[in-house]
Amino acid sequence: MYVYLNNAATTRVDGRVLYRFSKFFRNLYENPMTSFYSPGAKEVEAEMEKARKEVSDLINASRKEIYFTSGGTESDNWAIKGIALNHWEEKGEIISTPIEHSAVLSSLKTVREWGFSVKFLHVDKFGMVDPDEVRKLITGRTILISVMHANNEIGTIEPIKEIGEIAREKEIIFHTDAVQTAAHIPIDVEEMNVDLLSISAHKFYGPKGVGALYIRKGVKIKPFMDGGHQERGFRAGTHNVPGIIGMGEAAKIGLSEMDKEIKEILELKKYILERFEKIEGIYVNGHPEKKLPGNINISIEGVKAETMLLYLGLNGIIVSAGPSHVLKAIGIPENLYFNTIRISLGKFNTFEEIEYFLDVFEAGIREFRKKK
Amino acid sequence: MYVYLNNAATTRVDGRVLYRFSKFFRNLYENPMTSFYSPGAKEVEAEMEKARKEVSDLINASRKEIYFTSGGTESDNWAIKGIALNHWEEKGEIISTPIEHSAVLSSLKTVREWGFSVKFLHVDKFGMVDPDEVRKLITGRTILISVMHANNEIGTIEPIKEIGEIAREKEIIFHTDAVQTAAHIPIDVEEMNVDLLSISAHKFYGPKGVGALYIRKGVKIKPFMDGGHQERGFRAGTHNVPGIIGMGEAAKIGLSEMDKEIKEILELKKYILERFEKIEGIYVNGHPEKKLPGNINISIEGVKAETMLLYLGLNGIIVSAGPSHVLKAIGIPENLYFNTIRISLGKFNTFEEIEYFLDVFEAGIREFRKKK
Repeated sequence: MYVYLNNAATTRVDGRVLYRFSKFFRNLYENPMTSFYSPGAKEVEAEMEKARKEVSDLINASRKEIYFTSGGTESDNWAIKGIALNHWEEKGEIISTPIEHSAVLSSLKTVREWGFSVKFLHVDKFGMVDPDEVRKLITGRTILISVMHANNEIGTIEPIKEIGEIAREKEIIFHTDAVQTAAHIPIDVEEMNVDLLSISAHKFYGPKGVGALYIRKGVKIKPFMDGGHQERGFRAGTHNVPGIIGMGEAAKIGLSEMDKEIKEILELKKYILERFEKIEGIYVNGHPEKKLPGNINISIEGVKAETMLLYLGLNGIIVSAGPSHVLKAIGIPENLYFNTIRISLGKFNTFEEIEYFLDVFEAGIREFRKKK
Repeated sequence: MYVYLNNAATTRVDGRVLYRFSKFFRNLYENPMTSFYSPGAKEVEAEMEKARKEVSDLINASRKEIYFTSGGTESDNWAIKGIALNHWEEKGEIISTPIEHSAVLSSLKTVREWGFSVKFLHVDKFGMVDPDEVRKLITGRTILISVMHANNEIGTIEPIKEIGEIAREKEIIFHTDAVQTAAHIPIDVEEMNVDLLSISAHKFYGPKGVGALYIRKGVKIKPFMDGGHQERGFRAGTHNVPGIIGMGEAAKIGLSEMDKEIKEILELKKYILERFEKIEGIYVNGHPEKKLPGNINISIEGVKAETMLLYLGLNGIIVSAGPSHVLKAIGIPENLYFNTIRISLGKFNTFEEIEYFLDVFEAGIREFRKKK
């Protein structure tokens, strides 16, 4: 049996997504930038704009605020470097967290080399930031706040709405990396007061190699990818048409089936956690309530994550593991540092798969602990 | 009849490419970065490395010198900004041409804003640069030479090998944008002494949204896309696995069928040019011999390009048009400036299509000229 429990890393493409984008490789393959005189390109452009609308609907934005990119990493790079480049002369400060995805952290490292400074918020043992600290760190030199919507390792959902209110009040541009949350939990850029938001299609059953950056109308940002006039002159490069159409379909499905998906995944999770409770020395990480539905992050006493991963892999079960900068930031006890794994559920997981996983997992725990 | 003669803009995906990558959406969809413990991811990684080898073979590079990107635009941005970022403190000069693709020209504009300077080579009436001028422009502050392999508008193939020899002798990093030439004419990075080379899959019957930057072993360049440890830590972001596999297949086909493809396309071109010769007031732009097989760029006396494009489009024929910075640089006479169109042939074009195009084209010329 093959059981994929690494849905936070990437997901299987939904069959409806594949069906919808498949004709854009050999039939409607024209470049939408030539729509002025080519009927085929015009059709491609119309389909692309339909997808843009579907992506904007997912986060309650308007169509013209969606800029397609090559994925979440590019969106994060663009958000941070694009705002920095717009303050090239005077430089400035950026407020972020130590538990961001590496796409954000590495981009912050680069802009520090450019002469910008970065202030990191504290996180509590659940990985939660405190909006009050955001308020305290803002100075006259703050140009950007970047706080992720939910953490990829431990699933904790950050108080984005509260931070957004502060950012709006202080007139600071606010970016959130929503790669883990888009199409998994509700997002409303208006309610959340977000100015820039990164998403990636392959995290919600869309294709790899495509993502988007939401840029609120009026927000001043420099392009990251220079060249042609695509995306209203803000993101050059021939459009990844099949990817964009696929992302639109994935967004549409994600929005319309979100409630059902959350309900089903939470049922699987509830069952897993109940079985885990019966095993001694398993500690669940992340916030107990404010948490991504699909995320289970656990530290296992006496069993190395690496060992568990290889053992599960041999049995056809795919999970993932820290240690990472996130576990360090939330202060996982040292003896559990290399004993932490992430199980991330997706909509294609079945009860039967979970049952198999738990049986294999429990047998492994018994075996590994016996050997000590 | 639908006749696509805009193959320099983008191409139809080869059926064999589609066949090969199609299983990587729903079957082999895992993230290759998790190959340490996941058998599925291990298979994906192996297939990806096979594709990397195929792409490297296309340009006579070694597998580890190929870095996958989201396309030609990203590769160009990376080459120029990555070298600039590596000379952050001392800055320096870049030598390029006025007829580069906008991805190069716009990136050069950005690094100028960063404090670097750019010197542009002259081009003759065919759009050809003079290697001797490259030698003259090199100073102790030169950090990069960037000259395209062949021009996208007029098809002129630049003396890359000669420039490469000078760059090597002077120990200057040499980048060439080979987006128009890869898999269309032979490329050998060893023979050409190239250090950085940009390619894009959708220009040679591969998918959109994927490209590569060749980085010669030992060349020092900063990453452009910051984040995870993909591509040996030099290009972050979850791999676009289907895109990469598709690019590998397209490169493999391109290499093995290049001679046949060139021969067939040149036959179509010969026939078109013979028919054009019989029409008065048609001038062929670009170099007469050193030219991309598929490129035909013409200026038409008394007929506006825009009119011709719309007329052809209505008849199902897709070509493209300047005016652009390239036409300006080669000094097209002012009265022909807005009368220039590009016909770019591809391997899927048939003699029957060309016959139809020529009949429609000639009828158009007659009609438009009558109206004057």
